Amino acid sequence: MRSSVHRLTLTDPGDVSPLAEAIERGELNPATIVAVIGKTPGNGLVNDYTRGYLTQSLALLIGEHTAIHWRRIIERIPFIFSGGTEGVLTPHITVFCTEPDGNSDGRPTLAIATAFTPELAPQAIGRKAQAMDTAEAVRVAMGAAGIDDPADVHFVQVKGPCLTASQISAAAASGLDVAGGNADKSMALSRVASAFGVALALGEISEDQLDDSAFLKDFTLYSGVASCSSGVEVRCNEIVLLGNSRKWAGDYRISHRPMADALDISALYELLDDLQLEPIALSKSFAQNTTGTRSESPVMAAFVKCEADRRGLIRGQPHTMLNDGDMNQQRHIRGAVGAIAAAVLADTRIFVSGGAEHQGPDGGGIVTAIARKPEPDLQS
Amino acid sequence: MRSSVHRLTLTDPGDVSPLAEAIERGELNPATIVAVIGKTPGNGLVNDYTRGYLTQSLALLIGEHTAIHWRRIIERIPFIFSGGTEGVLTPHITVFCTEPDGNSDGRPTLAIATAFTPELAPQAIGRKAQAMDTAEAVRVAMGAAGIDDPADVHFVQVKGPCLTASQISAAAASGLDVAGGNADKSMALSRVASAFGVALALGEISEDQLDDSAFLKDFTLYSGVASCSSGVEVRCNEIVLLGNSRKWAGDYRISHRPMADALDISALYELLDDLQLEPIALSKSFAQNTTGTRSESPVMAAFVKCEADRRGLIRGQPHTMLNDGDMNQQRHIRGAVGAIAAAVLADTRIFVSGGAEHQGPDGGGIVTAIARKPEPDLQS
Amino acid sequence: MRSSVHRLTLTDPGDVSPLAEAIERGELNPATIVAVIGKTPGNGLVNDYTRGYLTQSLALLIGEHTAIHWRRIIERIPFIFSGGTEGVLTPHITVFCTEPDGNSDGRPTLAIATAFTPELAPQAIGRKAQAMDTAEAVRVAMGAAGIDDPADVHFVQVKGPCLTASQISAAAASGLDVAGGNADKSMALSRVASAFGVALALGEISEDQLDDSAFLKDFTLYSGVASCSSGVEVRCNEIVLLGNSRKWAGDYRISHRPMADALDISALYELLDDLQLEPIALSKSFAQNTTGTRSESPVMAAFVKCEADRRGLIRGQPHTMLNDGDMNQQRHIRGAVGAIAAAVLADTRIFVSGGAEHQGPDGGGIVTAIARKPEPDLQS
Amino acid sequence: MRSSVHRLTLTDPGDVSPLAEAIERGELNPATIVAVIGKTPGNGLVNDYTRGYLTQSLALLIGEHTAIHWRRIIERIPFIFSGGTEGVLTPHITVFCTEPDGNSDGRPTLAIATAFTPELAPQAIGRKAQAMDTAEAVRVAMGAAGIDDPADVHFVQVKGPCLTASQISAAAASGLDVAGGNADKSMALSRVASAFGVALALGEISEDQLDDSAFLKDFTLYSGVASCSSGVEVRCNEIVLLGNSRKWAGDYRISHRPMADALDISALYELLDDLQLEPIALSKSFAQNTTGTRSESPVMAAFVKCEADRRGLIRGQPHTMLNDGDMNQQRHIRGAVGAIAAAVLADTRIFVSGGAEHQGPDGGGIVTAIARKPEPDLQS
Repeated sequence: MRSSVHRLTLTDPGDVSPLAEAIERGELNPATIVAVIGKTPGNGLVNDYTRGYLTQSLALLIGEHTAIHWRRIIERIPFIFSGGTEGVLTPHITVFCTEPDGNSDGRPTLAIATAFTPELAPQAIGRKAQAMDTAEAVRVAMGAAGIDDPADVHFVQVKGPCLTASQISAAAASGLDVAGGNADKSMALSRVASAFGVALALGEISEDQLDDSAFLKDFTLYSGVASCSSGVEVRCNEIVLLGNSRKWAGDYRISHRPMADALDISALYELLDDLQLEPIALSKSFAQNTTGTRSESPVMAAFVKCEADRRGLIRGQPHTMLNDGDMNQQRHIRGAVGAIAAAVLADTRIFVSGGAEHQGPDGGGIVTAIARKPEPDLQS
Repeated sequence: MRSSVHRLTLTDPGDVSPLAEAIERGELNPATIVAVIGKTPGNGLVNDYTRGYLTQSLALLIGEHTAIHWRRIIERIPFIFSGGTEGVLTPHITVFCTEPDGNSDGRPTLAIATAFTPELAPQAIGRKAQAMDTAEAVRVAMGAAGIDDPADVHFVQVKGPCLTASQISAAAASGLDVAGGNADKSMALSRVASAFGVALALGEISEDQLDDSAFLKDFTLYSGVASCSSGVEVRCNEIVLLGNSRKWAGDYRISHRPMADALDISALYELLDDLQLEPIALSKSFAQNTTGTRSESPVMAAFVKCEADRRGLIRGQPHTMLNDGDMNQQRHIRGAVGAIAAAVLADTRIFVSGGAEHQGPDGGGIVTAIARKPEPDLQS
Repeated sequence: MRSSVHRLTLTDPGDVSPLAEAIERGELNPATIVAVIGKTPGNGLVNDYTRGYLTQSLALLIGEHTAIHWRRIIERIPFIFSGGTEGVLTPHITVFCTEPDGNSDGRPTLAIATAFTPELAPQAIGRKAQAMDTAEAVRVAMGAAGIDDPADVHFVQVKGPCLTASQISAAAASGLDVAGGNADKSMALSRVASAFGVALALGEISEDQLDDSAFLKDFTLYSGVASCSSGVEVRCNEIVLLGNSRKWAGDYRISHRPMADALDISALYELLDDLQLEPIALSKSFAQNTTGTRSESPVMAAFVKCEADRRGLIRGQPHTMLNDGDMNQQRHIRGAVGAIAAAVLADTRIFVSGGAEHQGPDGGGIVTAIARKPEPDLQS
Repeated sequence: MRSSVHRLTLTDPGDVSPLAEAIERGELNPATIVAVIGKTPGNGLVNDYTRGYLTQSLALLIGEHTAIHWRRIIERIPFIFSGGTEGVLTPHITVFCTEPDGNSDGRPTLAIATAFTPELAPQAIGRKAQAMDTAEAVRVAMGAAGIDDPADVHFVQVKGPCLTASQISAAAASGLDVAGGNADKSMALSRVASAFGVALALGEISEDQLDDSAFLKDFTLYSGVASCSSGVEVRCNEIVLLGNSRKWAGDYRISHRPMADALDISALYELLDDLQLEPIALSKSFAQNTTGTRSESPVMAAFVKCEADRRGLIRGQPHTMLNDGDMNQQRHIRGAVGAIAAAVLADTRIFVSGGAEHQGPDGGGIVTAIARKPEPDLQS
């Protein structure tokens, strides 16, 4: 198989013309699209409808090009969008394509696979049941990607369902026992269940450690490669698994690093080093250029998972994110950590997602990047 | 004269006990305080009352220690606070003290002076008249600091008055011609007038370039060291001027760098280099430490002025800060650029102020830091 | 012609199943839909994408039922949505249908017509040119509705285009002279141009009063029946005109009242009186009923246009809407005046739109309601 | 004793000149002030510092006039401020004064008393322990007011302490068991404990019904006269009790009504009727008057407690307050119900407080008003 990655700036969820134009120019074949991950300009919270809007718009476009009804497109292709492009960030999509190709060069190359859990019952959301289903789906995706060693998995994006306030209220009224007393809590627990599912599948935690009582409690349990979101627009967990495989053909490879805390800029430099990229080149050669013509960055996509430290401190100093009644903590932390990544990577098209509970070290998170493979003679 | 600088974390504007304790421990003499600059946990916009609250609280404390009525303290000492500790930032104050001391070591050392313009009439705010008064006050402050060469001035913090919606409405009703049709615009124009005043005093622009028509229009005109804020709580421009002088005694010196845009991380590394500080030491040795015990950073204070690029682009990519109806652009940009500075300097106590119109390059801003002087044998 | 009106609660702009079900139940024929007006759960500001999302979702549904491509549906049917269901308000749509029917009862009955201006150039937006095109479209709509007397026109909803920050910046860069220096201002000026267009067509102002210099300045000029919104999702002005005509068949009629200020509860009671409805019945018989079964209100739809008084006062007392950096003034005023209307009308499905510049008395606005026609023997 | 009530508009918490001027004009004697209740222009949430700022400012002023240190003033006089003047509301204070006077007219007259609980331990906050202490303080206040019959108590305002995110985190780290996992929850539980304390003292609930398990669970238990807020600025519960007594002298009396839901406008008309005031007079004679000169309303103060129905429905229709990530539900509901009250009472100086858990009927709340006593011959 051959993998390819396309990044497109998309400021309005109702205007997918940049993808239409890329298709028309022959840059990508819509029939080969297997997943789309992106940032939308909403608030990234329960009432963010930009995710659903962009999904509908993209499915309509891909459907027109492939003669498949847009509702079927949504069922087949994971569209995983995180709302909130706070600060310097740019709304954009990263389109993942795969097609048959037997000409692997034998070097570690980006491998891509997707999987879905069955539809989740309301009472399964945010609990072990969701995690178990997720783990099974991750195993399926690893198989599909042809990756045997969990160490070759560098990123597992999961989008799962959550409950709205009215669904929670309706459940309570009908005696149904659901997890989380409000919408925010439900979103968080869904992310945790997804993360634990990934961790279980990759051997980061054992099944007997996976208990409802550990959710949002035992933060020593986490996945180092899971990036989980939740939203009202899905009913099952959708999984996009990325890793490296010597069996795949393609121009890109992937790596990741844990972030110890929200200021862990070292993780970004180490990640560039893993990908054999020079930090100096990045930070010096991409000067302000408002005409849009600039040399292309060797980093094709970057994914950051982060959180507002729930202990209220960063390196011993208090932050105010958890007490702000006007700006949700997720909008705070995305804007902050997204800016650090954008500054080091010299690109504002960073996928940054808040809510890193049990995803990377407590109070920190994970940073992942896809870059062009180095020239063969630079290969480590 | 001897300069000293004290940085204190202060999360609640009504609780100034950290300063009270520092005074009790003898770390600083309240009678020597000449200025206080800080970040408060408000929204940093027109309806942010945390600035006035902290001013009142600090004036009460200093007044009790110096037997001067707190209202007189407010008239004598500039308290310049910027609201908004978005993202990783920490509410804090930097206290500047000066006292007579003849033992200068002859090396460039932090020099501090303050000055005030006369009270400004509503129709002067945001116009050349305010700039002219500001320029005169800056000259007075340079004289007081014993700095002759404008190149030795590294930071001029100015706080000036602005008009509220009801004041603007009242002015219109009474036929008074005031600048700016709403409170946000009035705040911006006041910052511009202050910046142009600094630029004029330091020779960065000439008086014939200083015309009302250039305000928010000709962005090639700017000051490279002005950091201007505005708020309803003052009636005149208050100025804190910082620079280096070989005549002063003290442990600190200061430097600054322009930021070309919001991602200009190079400016931060260059600033560290100017201050003869190693970036590696900073980014590696300050690991997450929630106990609060950690080695002290050699950077004692940092000041950043930044803005959401009004052209809507950062390095050719769109940002969403100017179209967000829920989060003011200033909250966006402070959180983003503040995080970049905090990550490089490994400290969340960064003074970040938005609204950098005519303060540093258009779309970028200025970063300034105060650090311990290097050991004499390292002196360049 | 026969008019009919259908109100449907619609909380998620991506879920139009309530309309699908009404169609399936035969309650309305999708081929007869001529306009949809509604409230969506977004913020109602520049970056509110719920309006476009709901438009796309409804057009897809209607397109499937009528075998017309959804993009053609959007061109034919005005979908006029106002974002922001602050406070007690409920996201909902009001669907207007017309079909041939010769059996008028000779009493004043709701008449409906739509019209569109040509696509507007960026430099026409927010200026007299937009108003002139709007006036012509209003005249076309009056003709189509069979209304000769402007006094029989009770509501003219207009949605027009506005410019985003990046469009304004691009225009400035290319030397194009556009109205309004930022997105908020552009939205306001577009609403004014639409309102003046309505006023001109209905004889409320004369053409020589219609000058760019009156925009947002001379508030004695206004339309008493215009309700104007603006958004990035349209390129021409779309008009929905509602009035009473004795030539039409149908169960409903319409009336309106000016609101003198945001507290003008009398206007609501007078409007009920105009429609021969008892206030007591309304406020007493609609007790809290969480099961959803309740007797139907005689008021089928209500439309409110309101604004945060730009002088900063309501009945001599200051309000804080214009100085709030966290909550846009439109979110404030919609929540407030919407609640007053909902309390008097005993229904939370009120269309409330902010930005009433030159629409109704300065600082106040307009309230309009559609109700079942009284029994013939009650007819005035 | 003689009671008097003074209402003053106060837009800036740092500017208490309206009270200073009233004192100078001899309208009120600062030595007779026993309580101040008011609305400040903050967000009314955890990070609202306008409450503390106004408290400090008022205490400084009263302290200067009474030669008592301002910190002692804060300990003696309850300053109970609710942040958030959303929509049409006006920041203001209501000052309550009492002084010896033997000339009661024998008619029901406003009686005022205050009381304080001991300082509450962190683990008592939001639990039965806080309620028990509150009940005892309410009994003390009733005694001090000379009210024997609980039916004569019409309003018990309580302000209690809550825990910030960092305090909760610190408690967890030290093994201290505190109620509520985050700041918002802690605020809510503190309000409940206060309400249950009032209900217990007034016989609305029995002690065996008062169990931690009923908090935020059994909404059939509530007080019909409690109005409870919580904030980080107090360490004990402060109580202001208002009722009618034939033993007191004064010009005012008080009454209250339950609100069945957020649209219960009938409650307001019934309240006016209780106070023998004509609704027509109120709604007709207070026309928009921007000069500030207008006849005085017979309603001297109004207090509303309300909440966003946690079941997500109002009269069977969904609201969006609980799912809004940008605007806190309290800002929504205060703006909505405050506007309804302001419209009926024709005055924007309404004290509206959100968070009505166990204060009035579930999903509704309480409205209370103080008005001039009717002329004796109108006395019922």
